[in-house]
Amino acid sequence: MANKAITERDKDFAQWYTDVVKAAHLADYSSVKGCMVIEPNGYAIWERMKEILDKKFKELGHVNVAMPVFIPENLLKKEGELVNGFAPEVAWITHGGSKELEERLAFRPTSETLFCDYYKDHVASYRDLPKLYNQWCNVCRWEKETRPFLRSREFWWQEGHTVHSTREEAEAETKRMMDVYQWFHHEILAIPSITGLKTEKEKFAGAEYTLTNEALMYNGVALQAGTSHYFGQKFAEAYDVKFLNKENKLEYVYQTSWGTTTRMIGGLIMVHSDDKGLVLPPRIAPKQVVIIPIGNDDRVFDLCNKINSELNNNNIVTYIDNTEKSPGFKFAEAEVNGIPVRIEIGPRDLENNKITFARRDTSEKYSVDIDTDIVKYTGDLLETIQKDMYERAKERRDKLTFTATNLKEMEDILNKQPGFIHADWCGDVNCENRIKEIKGCKSRCITNEPLITGKCVCCGKDAKEHVIWGIQY
Amino acid sequence: MANKAITERDKDFAQWYTDVVKAAHLADYSSVKGCMVIEPNGYAIWERMKEILDKKFKELGHVNVAMPVFIPENLLKKEGELVNGFAPEVAWITHGGSKELEERLAFRPTSETLFCDYYKDHVASYRDLPKLYNQWCNVCRWEKETRPFLRSREFWWQEGHTVHSTREEAEAETKRMMDVYQWFHHEILAIPSITGLKTEKEKFAGAEYTLTNEALMYNGVALQAGTSHYFGQKFAEAYDVKFLNKENKLEYVYQTSWGTTTRMIGGLIMVHSDDKGLVLPPRIAPKQVVIIPIGNDDRVFDLCNKINSELNNNNIVTYIDNTEKSPGFKFAEAEVNGIPVRIEIGPRDLENNKITFARRDTSEKYSVDIDTDIVKYTGDLLETIQKDMYERAKERRDKLTFTATNLKEMEDILNKQPGFIHADWCGDVNCENRIKEIKGCKSRCITNEPLITGKCVCCGKDAKEHVIWGIQY
Repeated sequence: MANKAITERDKDFAQWYTDVVKAAHLADYSSVKGCMVIEPNGYAIWERMKEILDKKFKELGHVNVAMPVFIPENLLKKEGELVNGFAPEVAWITHGGSKELEERLAFRPTSETLFCDYYKDHVASYRDLPKLYNQWCNVCRWEKETRPFLRSREFWWQEGHTVHSTREEAEAETKRMMDVYQWFHHEILAIPSITGLKTEKEKFAGAEYTLTNEALMYNGVALQAGTSHYFGQKFAEAYDVKFLNKENKLEYVYQTSWGTTTRMIGGLIMVHSDDKGLVLPPRIAPKQVVIIPIGNDDRVFDLCNKINSELNNNNIVTYIDNTEKSPGFKFAEAEVNGIPVRIEIGPRDLENNKITFARRDTSEKYSVDIDTDIVKYTGDLLETIQKDMYERAKERRDKLTFTATNLKEMEDILNKQPGFIHADWCGDVNCENRIKEIKGCKSRCITNEPLITGKCVCCGKDAKEHVIWGIQY
Repeated sequence: MANKAITERDKDFAQWYTDVVKAAHLADYSSVKGCMVIEPNGYAIWERMKEILDKKFKELGHVNVAMPVFIPENLLKKEGELVNGFAPEVAWITHGGSKELEERLAFRPTSETLFCDYYKDHVASYRDLPKLYNQWCNVCRWEKETRPFLRSREFWWQEGHTVHSTREEAEAETKRMMDVYQWFHHEILAIPSITGLKTEKEKFAGAEYTLTNEALMYNGVALQAGTSHYFGQKFAEAYDVKFLNKENKLEYVYQTSWGTTTRMIGGLIMVHSDDKGLVLPPRIAPKQVVIIPIGNDDRVFDLCNKINSELNNNNIVTYIDNTEKSPGFKFAEAEVNGIPVRIEIGPRDLENNKITFARRDTSEKYSVDIDTDIVKYTGDLLETIQKDMYERAKERRDKLTFTATNLKEMEDILNKQPGFIHADWCGDVNCENRIKEIKGCKSRCITNEPLITGKCVCCGKDAKEHVIWGIQY
């Protein structure tokens, strides 16, 4: 049954998204223009994302730090491309108390400059390298149009920053962290993202190149969800970060950075959710199972408690909804909040030695014999849901993946239904700009796949790259 | 053996503190005046603090959220006492990109105003209450003099904010969270803090009253380490936050807030550390045991690996120092970094069927039979260290705790050796101000202990309160 507070997804996708965010208590607008409040249900998802990614980063040898949130204007300006890229979006602190500051401070839009400033004093020899840092923090970009999770003036992210003694090692790190992001999307978020190389026009300001993880939303619009940058020695030169190499010669260090943000929560919603509200893959769901007792029977409560303990003791995060609301209300609440599995237990079930399992993703219900191994059954069901959600998202993505060999075809596709569009490209930014005129369609990434026709989709000249294009959030 | 990079504690306490922070790689200065970089070793301590406190908060029913970092000037100004209290310390954002903002934004010095603004739209009935929120975030106060961890323009904290339908419940919450802070200091940080009520002069701007947790550093200077505020209905009135009570009448809500910050890391250092560097209580140490192999013998490496696995499998966080440095260098490094227990294993030990345990806190060494239950032995040793560290800190605190019955006595004590000074007080702020003239000595807290002489230490009139006084960081 659809939720009355939620607009139909197929009717108005943008409104549907806003309604789900609101109805599932994920985020709310605040009195601060362009900034959101992440509410408990939304923050719990972010905590789960942090927990899983942080563990992975640490296994790979990264350590967490906290850099200042402020960047003195002159420090920010040392690397020209970076500051040009971010200048229009920087928020400036000009006063401390009643005094005007001698030099204004940027609220970090990203922290390459601060890390470089730190490396300068902490990297002397190849023996000090690599340094593998990460931080979880807020950043600020003064966006004009904002939407909860997708684009807001303040958002939360992790930014990894690493320094290496060789190009090879730094490039391997850039690739390795992109693999982590893709693993996270495929295995945890059940989102079949694609990865590839950003074009020169779309790469991060100041990077030699940028790898990107691109997800496709239910409506065919793309979402950039994680990027990994190889800087080579560009920042090292601008900030004078040198080390003594094995040949005892001074050399500039090789750097990377990589980040994922709270916008992944937006991606989760727009890939999986439906007209009843949020749908969460079990591996990212902060609460995986809700048990709802029906009626007022001690045997029912006892069984609810028993199953609740057993599941929690076996690392399946479960809770009993013991509130005074009606069962129907509780069902709807669990649905809108995206709890993957609901267990219903009532006196009639008990008489028949049955309990009922309901899947959030498909609404299927199963009547299960009370003597079943409930822990195993629930664990298997959660894994099935996780797998099915990935497969459904992949089917949807594949359905919305197209190929174009000329501009007319591209236009026809985009006019009908946005999606990932495979098309060859000559490498000329003019063609990229021309394609952008079609509803703002941009290159998502350059793939390793072979050329399609060998001719640029735009100008018809010899193609250099097979590119995936799309409209983006 | 003292560390050459560290000034003697008894010679120059301030320099010793800075040296320990630097030598143990806890924090470093940054190019941003008054702001610090928390380095990996320091951040790992903060992560451990967060982990333990966050778990406790959640057990008590609190949920995490993220409020915006910005507060519009007009919103901040609604509660007069709060804004007057914080106005001199607020950092202001005036520009977004190249445009001047219509209304300038404060970088949050604390978030009561934003929470009130949120409650307004999310609290309607007594059925919605209580709301128990917390957030982990950065805050900014434009301090003039700064020191790593103790006072910096940006710092990191948790701020709990709760809303209740009755005075009794809100007051109980204020007390309960103060108990959590004291528990955390006593049981986890091994710091024998005292708690009590702040005087009117020292309470939080806008609070009805403030409970405080006060620790005494090795040098006798006090550190406020955690406060819990009862707001009554003051903020609710200023921000118009009402609810329908059980009698179906509109009533202002009752609020609390409570916080602890990264300055607790400074407290940890100044209570426990010594001339060799950092000393950490085992329960807060990110790494509890280091195993150092001596020589180049496969049997040694095998045993190191075996013990390392056994300890880690039993929740004792252990690592092997496998680097190419000399054993002596590794010992010194483990010492300066405050690893609570060091295990040394060499070929000679193996011949004698012994391994060596060294305590960081006392430098004692134990030769232990190889057939000992190493997991139990290590676990017991860590608990002994934890207990001994608390006892030593308590002895030191008691040694630096004094009683004064008149101003002359108070002056004599403070001229000789700062500490906690018990003295009766009439309740007049003029006496409080007079006492502050003695080296900046302030009331730490009002205790429940009985009056000492019954006469004010300052004016000699009838006393109302038994107050603990001291110089503070």
